[in-house]
Amino acid sequence: MQLLRFGPAGKEKPGVAIDGQHFDVSPLGEDYDEKFFGTGGLERLKGFVERNKSSLDKVPAGARLGSPIARPSKIVCIGLNYADHAKESGAKIPEEPILFMKSTTSLVGPNDEVMIPKNSVKTDWEVELAVIIGAKASYVSEADAMKHVAGYCLHNDVSEREFQLERGGTWDKGKGCDTFAPLGPYVVTPDEIKDINNVRLWLSVNGKMMQDGSTSDLIFKVPFLISYLSQFMTLLPGDVISTGTPKGVGLGFNPPIYLKPGDVMELGIDGMGVSKQKVVAWRA
Amino acid sequence: MQLLRFGPAGKEKPGVAIDGQHFDVSPLGEDYDEKFFGTGGLERLKGFVERNKSSLDKVPAGARLGSPIARPSKIVCIGLNYADHAKESGAKIPEEPILFMKSTTSLVGPNDEVMIPKNSVKTDWEVELAVIIGAKASYVSEADAMKHVAGYCLHNDVSEREFQLERGGTWDKGKGCDTFAPLGPYVVTPDEIKDINNVRLWLSVNGKMMQDGSTSDLIFKVPFLISYLSQFMTLLPGDVISTGTPKGVGLGFNPPIYLKPGDVMELGIDGMGVSKQKVVAWRA
Repeated sequence: MQLLRFGPAGKEKPGVAIDGQHFDVSPLGEDYDEKFFGTGGLERLKGFVERNKSSLDKVPAGARLGSPIARPSKIVCIGLNYADHAKESGAKIPEEPILFMKSTTSLVGPNDEVMIPKNSVKTDWEVELAVIIGAKASYVSEADAMKHVAGYCLHNDVSEREFQLERGGTWDKGKGCDTFAPLGPYVVTPDEIKDINNVRLWLSVNGKMMQDGSTSDLIFKVPFLISYLSQFMTLLPGDVISTGTPKGVGLGFNPPIYLKPGDVMELGIDGMGVSKQKVVAWRA
Repeated sequence: MQLLRFGPAGKEKPGVAIDGQHFDVSPLGEDYDEKFFGTGGLERLKGFVERNKSSLDKVPAGARLGSPIARPSKIVCIGLNYADHAKESGAKIPEEPILFMKSTTSLVGPNDEVMIPKNSVKTDWEVELAVIIGAKASYVSEADAMKHVAGYCLHNDVSEREFQLERGGTWDKGKGCDTFAPLGPYVVTPDEIKDINNVRLWLSVNGKMMQDGSTSDLIFKVPFLISYLSQFMTLLPGDVISTGTPKGVGLGFNPPIYLKPGDVMELGIDGMGVSKQKVVAWRA
């Protein structure tokens, strides 16, 4: 299945994509949140869609897509998880995963505008594979980790490099600004992905390909990451794990290239759709 | 006012403390969450208590106290915000606030047990003043910052020093383990605190005073912190800002002193009550 949410920001309704068409499943009476993923919601949704396939309303043409999940309890991210990106960042290959967190207020729809924060001069892009947790995970083994996955998702881990790296303290300062987490368009369930550790992901800016990698180059793979993170914090249904970005971010160029109003980012992962964000100056 | 929540974990009901006695205000039909704080809940609660003061049920004797707020969207913390603690940690006094985040799954009641995580050898204590946000804050000025405060709260920012400092990446890895955020007993509204930048806070382990400081020694004061954080992420009603710990943590001793099962932490802040946590080994 491919889950989506549509409608005005803050008032999204749940939907599904079937053969590229978007259908409204709001009559199910659920949203894609912690309760949904944690109580067998995917099975309920599957049954609902099967029973009502012929009568589902189409999502209105031109409707905004929201984040395909409701606000999660947390967005946990992995840093420097592709060797070529660690190199372009001037960083060593990490011995174990680097963990940081994005404020969940950064979450937006896949095609929403990305705002450059006030006082920012180094706003950057990062295409990533995000994992959506499907069952509470605390001290899970690598062998059991994949039982805790609800699905996968495209994520642009937008980052402000000065805030992240030059303002003291941890990376969290440059990761959680409003609009810094365009997610989606879809949560794709694992049965639709042949090998999550071998999917292509890419990002272009103004039509120029900047990142073009594969999760086959992940230093720490998805099952390991879930197991590892669950040693440090409990992962809840609906939580997001973003797995790191391949080379080609703005920081990695000499001189660096950062986003400015009017720029357009397009990104995608095989089997999970594409997203597109126009960059704009900050506004209230 | 002094807000509290009582009852079994996950099923807490709201209450208030009046002259040291705890009363059940669940007939108000609200919980102390983002919606409550963001929609004038404190005023509704005040009116409800005034109208029903003579008929409120007492909280049953021996009832567990929960976190005095429902799960927030985030717990944002400030590191090294007391000069004497920076010194004992072997760190420089920061030029601007150090920001990190705790997984909200770490939240527990003020007198709940604190579990030492699996594979932990360096679990430590940190008494802190926590600020509860009362109104959405994005790019607020220092002059306006205090309008965004719902109240104040005692917080033990329990920390695993090896996870935090020796396992690569950001501090978040050692801050968000289950039970690592005992909060409360009360959210105390600002009208009850004469000067938030001059309250005593202390923590003892097994009856021995380990930390004994004052928020007058905060390097970055509460209004500055709210303004500062709001430049990097939007703070939502009900969010927690924990403002840092004074000297006397286990890491600061030579040799360091870390928590072990059977230890008892007691802590307090003037005007906000005391809390007490027994340390236990990890269990599912």
